Amino acid sequence: MELKHVVGAQRISPAVLKRLFHTADEMRALVLREGGSDTLKRRVMATLFYEPSTRTRLSFEAAMRRLGGKVITTEAAAEFSSAVKGERLKDTIQVVGGYADVIVLRHKKQGSAAKAASVSSVPIINAGDGAGQHPTQMMLDLYTIQKEIGRLENLAIAMVGDLRNGRTVRSLCYILTKFQSPRLYLVSPRSLRMRKDIRAYLRRHGVPFEECDDLREVAGRVDVVYLTRVQAERMKGKCVRMNGRFQMDPSVLERLQQHAIIMHPLPRVDEIRQRRLVDIDPRAAYFRQAHNGLYVRMALLKMILAPDAPL
Amino acid sequence: MELKHVVGAQRISPAVLKRLFHTADEMRALVLREGGSDTLKRRVMATLFYEPSTRTRLSFEAAMRRLGGKVITTEAAAEFSSAVKGERLKDTIQVVGGYADVIVLRHKKQGSAAKAASVSSVPIINAGDGAGQHPTQMMLDLYTIQKEIGRLENLAIAMVGDLRNGRTVRSLCYILTKFQSPRLYLVSPRSLRMRKDIRAYLRRHGVPFEECDDLREVAGRVDVVYLTRVQAERMKGKCVRMNGRFQMDPSVLERLQQHAIIMHPLPRVDEIRQRRLVDIDPRAAYFRQAHNGLYVRMALLKMILAPDAPL
Amino acid sequence: MELKHVVGAQRISPAVLKRLFHTADEMRALVLREGGSDTLKRRVMATLFYEPSTRTRLSFEAAMRRLGGKVITTEAAAEFSSAVKGERLKDTIQVVGGYADVIVLRHKKQGSAAKAASVSSVPIINAGDGAGQHPTQMMLDLYTIQKEIGRLENLAIAMVGDLRNGRTVRSLCYILTKFQSPRLYLVSPRSLRMRKDIRAYLRRHGVPFEECDDLREVAGRVDVVYLTRVQAERMKGKCVRMNGRFQMDPSVLERLQQHAIIMHPLPRVDEIRQRRLVDIDPRAAYFRQAHNGLYVRMALLKMILAPDAPL
Repeated sequence: MELKHVVGAQRISPAVLKRLFHTADEMRALVLREGGSDTLKRRVMATLFYEPSTRTRLSFEAAMRRLGGKVITTEAAAEFSSAVKGERLKDTIQVVGGYADVIVLRHKKQGSAAKAASVSSVPIINAGDGAGQHPTQMMLDLYTIQKEIGRLENLAIAMVGDLRNGRTVRSLCYILTKFQSPRLYLVSPRSLRMRKDIRAYLRRHGVPFEECDDLREVAGRVDVVYLTRVQAERMKGKCVRMNGRFQMDPSVLERLQQHAIIMHPLPRVDEIRQRRLVDIDPRAAYFRQAHNGLYVRMALLKMILAPDAPL
Repeated sequence: MELKHVVGAQRISPAVLKRLFHTADEMRALVLREGGSDTLKRRVMATLFYEPSTRTRLSFEAAMRRLGGKVITTEAAAEFSSAVKGERLKDTIQVVGGYADVIVLRHKKQGSAAKAASVSSVPIINAGDGAGQHPTQMMLDLYTIQKEIGRLENLAIAMVGDLRNGRTVRSLCYILTKFQSPRLYLVSPRSLRMRKDIRAYLRRHGVPFEECDDLREVAGRVDVVYLTRVQAERMKGKCVRMNGRFQMDPSVLERLQQHAIIMHPLPRVDEIRQRRLVDIDPRAAYFRQAHNGLYVRMALLKMILAPDAPL
Repeated sequence: MELKHVVGAQRISPAVLKRLFHTADEMRALVLREGGSDTLKRRVMATLFYEPSTRTRLSFEAAMRRLGGKVITTEAAAEFSSAVKGERLKDTIQVVGGYADVIVLRHKKQGSAAKAASVSSVPIINAGDGAGQHPTQMMLDLYTIQKEIGRLENLAIAMVGDLRNGRTVRSLCYILTKFQSPRLYLVSPRSLRMRKDIRAYLRRHGVPFEECDDLREVAGRVDVVYLTRVQAERMKGKCVRMNGRFQMDPSVLERLQQHAIIMHPLPRVDEIRQRRLVDIDPRAAYFRQAHNGLYVRMALLKMILAPDAPL
């Protein structure tokens, strides 16, 4: 059950997730109780971001620091680093691996994290590689569902919005096949439906799913509504008429079951209307979901860098 | 006397300032004696800068680190963060508030700090909101006057330069009304005089002020000369002829009282001529003023995050 | 033997280097054994980079953090700092010297580090000043030779590539004159040969050197092949035909002595062909050279900030 590189969702087992979530619970208690610890005091994490993502970067850095670790960081590796002089990712990874004990990599190009892992002497954590994966987002999503709904089996989930380009919903589909009896509702405009490869993958793993184009039709039947950004620019003329069907608003809230939750990887644009009313509903879990990122990343860093240390 | 958000100067009382300055004195002694402490060891500060200001950011970060605290930072939130994807400030604040124990915010738009404070679960420190306020600059300015002149009452101050757009002099005016018997000389070109709202505010609070257009006329009568940048680009053709009247140079130095000081929020452009001669004059307090920023910000962070802890 | 500013290579004595390398050995052992120490716990280092250099910056920051020190940093001082408002370097140095205990400066303009040192109250470490110097690169280069070859005397070194514009090879020439009996082979296209000033300097110090235009001719006679980037854009039409003569590849590897090493300051572009084959050769020392930067900079920071402290 040792963890080294964290590149994709496919390779992560429910057993590892279970252990990770248990540690995340301990991290939450630790932060609330005393803010942090010295567990990773002698460890250095490098965050190499070739593409900006302030939220993800700050979440990782806060996680490392709350465990007493050190951070070296570059906020815009692509623009400012020697990447401009033509340096290759593999060389950078080999050099930075001499300074740091773990590298968190964000890159525009799909497959970059795997490429980095192939030459790295230290663990690589994929913090998003283009249209590829973003496994720690998947982990915090699942952790949130576990905390809020109380189980990861027999889940009914509506995924809503731009399912064609959404990295997070793709990763969720992969991982959900590993748990018992999930049911999926894929709610999107026709032009943005979930890609073929994932639909085939779901079928192959016997996961029932239903495609539709109106959230209101399925809202009353699910445990989780997982919203994603509807990228207006890709929907062109049609978007005005269709938007309402893929948005959360008080009228959809009314149909939602009492125990259900609303998730969103953030940032949101206009997937939620009448924000104030929705935000205060106890089922709106997206800020709790974002906060969970801290505890899950703390747990992950500990499992990778100091698996046997006490908290 | 509890401090939570620090958004504007108006709400800060002389009593809080007195306590703050006392703590700042202790911080100065601490830094000189041993470099820092572990007082804020388990605390995380986020610096969210939507507008660059290296000096202010580094000052806050040095303050936090010298108290043993951790920092997560973004140097150019506007350009690199998910702000480009349309995320709203309020959402960012709610997310980052889940990672950090205090947020230092710099933003282009007036009112941003108040907006952030309205949704934040952790304290917000305004590090400048456009044409709005910059309360910690005001604090270090007052602290410098207290240290250098020995009092905050009965002060005669010449404010010089672009009084129309200068955020620091506006904040100073607000706070000076809370101390006994200030006298102000507002020295600026006609087109850059102090705005109506502040002049009305001074009158309402019974603070006598005089407007004029030549620093040499008043230099001999003040305790403090507070220079601000004369933004040449806004003065167009007139600036060449007028500049001399709003600049510090050895001839103005001669008229200055022995106990008086010269302040400047920095950076300076050409408000000071024959820099070398002026810089070595013991009355040139602007670098001491900048250094005081460290101690005042250390004091502020301690008062907000650990008011009851020993140093 | 006290160190304050580290501006250029000329002033650094073999005695200081010897002590530095001894400390670097201890740092390497420390990092391997326990990751780091608390030696510089109360110290703050500022990295002011007016020009991007992720690798150099991360190396300094990892060094400081592994010694328990704090870091305040700006990745792009030129673009984002108040430099845009016209602030002068000297003012910035005086302000930041009030926050930090040492300043690591990278600047586009030759002579900037000396200028900074002239006004700074805290030590300045030059991390590259344009076409000027980069003394810590020289230190880690020499340290690597010492570790790999076992001596700094009687060295035969081939410097290859763009010798006209390469800062690192210029610094190496300066420092090598201080050791016994070096022999240099300067291998470059005619248009990129080592500049006159350095050739005169070598002659004045009695260092024999030979200029040639084919690495294969000298590869069998040297202890060190020091490659530098051949900047294709400066060589125009000629580059295609000439490139082979200035590149490392398996055919050159074959001619190399068994004990010889290949160095490169990185990043590399195409100075090495069939990378995979060359990279796995034990004589390829460039990644070890980069890693040595961490230990040498740790040693330097300790010697400057806490010369008498135990590790």
